[in-house]
Amino acid sequence: MAKRLIPLFNRVLVEKIVPPSRTNAGILLPEKSSKLNSGKVIAVGPGLHTKEGKLIPVAVKEGDTVLLPEYGGTEVKLENKEYHLYRDDDILGTLHD
Amino acid sequence: MAKRLIPLFNRVLVEKIVPPSRTNAGILLPEKSSKLNSGKVIAVGPGLHTKEGKLIPVAVKEGDTVLLPEYGGTEVKLENKEYHLYRDDDILGTLHD
Amino acid sequence: MAKRLIPLFNRVLVEKIVPPSRTNAGILLPEKSSKLNSGKVIAVGPGLHTKEGKLIPVAVKEGDTVLLPEYGGTEVKLENKEYHLYRDDDILGTLHD
Amino acid sequence: MAKRLIPLFNRVLVEKIVPPSRTNAGILLPEKSSKLNSGKVIAVGPGLHTKEGKLIPVAVKEGDTVLLPEYGGTEVKLENKEYHLYRDDDILGTLHD
Amino acid sequence: MAKRLIPLFNRVLVEKIVPPSRTNAGILLPEKSSKLNSGKVIAVGPGLHTKEGKLIPVAVKEGDTVLLPEYGGTEVKLENKEYHLYRDDDILGTLHD
Amino acid sequence: MAKRLIPLFNRVLVEKIVPPSRTNAGILLPEKSSKLNSGKVIAVGPGLHTKEGKLIPVAVKEGDTVLLPEYGGTEVKLENKEYHLYRDDDILGTLHD
Amino acid sequence: MAKRLIPLFNRVLVEKIVPPSRTNAGILLPEKSSKLNSGKVIAVGPGLHTKEGKLIPVAVKEGDTVLLPEYGGTEVKLENKEYHLYRDDDILGTLHD
Repeated sequence: MAKRLIPLFNRVLVEKIVPPSRTNAGILLPEKSSKLNSGKVIAVGPGLHTKEGKLIPVAVKEGDTVLLPEYGGTEVKLENKEYHLYRDDDILGTLHD
Repeated sequence: MAKRLIPLFNRVLVEKIVPPSRTNAGILLPEKSSKLNSGKVIAVGPGLHTKEGKLIPVAVKEGDTVLLPEYGGTEVKLENKEYHLYRDDDILGTLHD
Repeated sequence: MAKRLIPLFNRVLVEKIVPPSRTNAGILLPEKSSKLNSGKVIAVGPGLHTKEGKLIPVAVKEGDTVLLPEYGGTEVKLENKEYHLYRDDDILGTLHD
Repeated sequence: MAKRLIPLFNRVLVEKIVPPSRTNAGILLPEKSSKLNSGKVIAVGPGLHTKEGKLIPVAVKEGDTVLLPEYGGTEVKLENKEYHLYRDDDILGTLHD
Repeated sequence: MAKRLIPLFNRVLVEKIVPPSRTNAGILLPEKSSKLNSGKVIAVGPGLHTKEGKLIPVAVKEGDTVLLPEYGGTEVKLENKEYHLYRDDDILGTLHD
Repeated sequence: MAKRLIPLFNRVLVEKIVPPSRTNAGILLPEKSSKLNSGKVIAVGPGLHTKEGKLIPVAVKEGDTVLLPEYGGTEVKLENKEYHLYRDDDILGTLHD
Repeated sequence: MAKRLIPLFNRVLVEKIVPPSRTNAGILLPEKSSKLNSGKVIAVGPGLHTKEGKLIPVAVKEGDTVLLPEYGGTEVKLENKEYHLYRDDDILGTLHD
């Protein structure tokens, strides 16, 4: 079965970041500190055509860390790994160190 | 009766891929591994006109393997074989090995 | 009373094809084989103006065999014969031998 | 009181055609044969501006016999005679002998 | 307090015409003959901008007698006199002798 | 804390005019005569961009007396004084002596 | 985990201003005087593309004090500090001393 997904239009394939529930040193973290709903961009579509026929490229790129909305997105399972597809205008922003 | 369907506008005729429920060697696969909702593109329409009258061609092409949304699509029976019609912007992406 | 109908805008006048319930040889066909909802295009409108004032001609033409959606369309009776009017973007595709 | 109505925008003033319930020779017609909902165009508006400011003239003209939708239209009484106003894109087509 | 109202955009200030319930000669008119919902245009706005920034002037002018829709319009009281505000595209047409 | 509000886009900051419930001479006015819902424009936004990127300036200006819709508007309290914010296309018209 | 958020499109990251419930001198303020729903702009997106493909920059800038709507906005927690994301057209105005 097919393995790699190239999204269509302005869709973005995201792998959600599951925050560690304990630190490397083994200390259990309280649930509150891990509330941020973020993900890694795995693949992006070519963009969306405006009504004039111009192509607006997707606003994020492969490798970006993104802040995701609490609801929405379509769950996709590829090779037993779980991903989510979002329209780029549903993604709230990019996260940087 | 007519046999071949050429979709109109940005419609895409898809034959859904039914995943094998057992391997070639006859081993029964667990249901979980076959959850991907994919299909083969059989035919595509000429595309959709924008409000300026420009034609935007369909985003997938004949032969593509596509990831389909869980709901939607119109069931069509041609020559006793079941197909589905989708608008190209309802198709989530293309699948590649 | 008037006899011929010329549709307005992107409307399409269709005569539905009623599949034969028995073959020429008289063999009764099972109901399943006749499920396709198709029709013959009798007349088409001049097309629809875009918001820029450009005319987009109707996507099907007189004589085409078309695949119709399961619901929708307006029943029209002309000279005691039953027809249906569809917007061209409600028609799913054209059927060919 | 004012007598003549000039419709605004793409509105069309229609006088519905009430089919004779008996022929000239006095034979009573069955109700089925008179089901067509048609009318005579009495007056049309100047047309509708597109979002670019272009004027699209009304698709029917005074004197046309038109096929009307089953529902919709605004009843107007002028000089004790009953008329209906339709947007031209609600009119299904023109009828010709 | 302010006395004159200049409508904004494509709004039209209308004074409804209350048909005489009796003739000049004092004959009481039956209610049916006065059913037309008409008004006098008192003032009009400058018009509406299209999405391209073009100004489309209001379709009626001061002094016009207009046919009003049965519902809609905003009641406005100026100097103890009752008026109604309509968007020009809600006005059905102009009435002429 | 900040004191002056500059509205964004096509928003208009309005101070509602509370009609005097008694005249200067001290005569109590009946409630009916004060029904007009009007206000003074305190500040306006820069205007709204059309889909083509053109800026349409706000249709009213600082100092205008405006007729307000019965419902709508956002209450804002600045320095313990009550104001209302409206989109300019919700304002019905300007009032003049 | 990522620390800085750059909003996408016309989104604005705002830190709400919590009004002091007592003055510097320690006098307890009554609740009424602190009702204004304002915030500091922390970061803004690049803007939104119109349907013609033109970029309209965000209407506020980093450092602005803004008046926020009573409802709406998406709560975001970054480094245990609470922020809110708004579309710039949901922000009512900018506040100035």
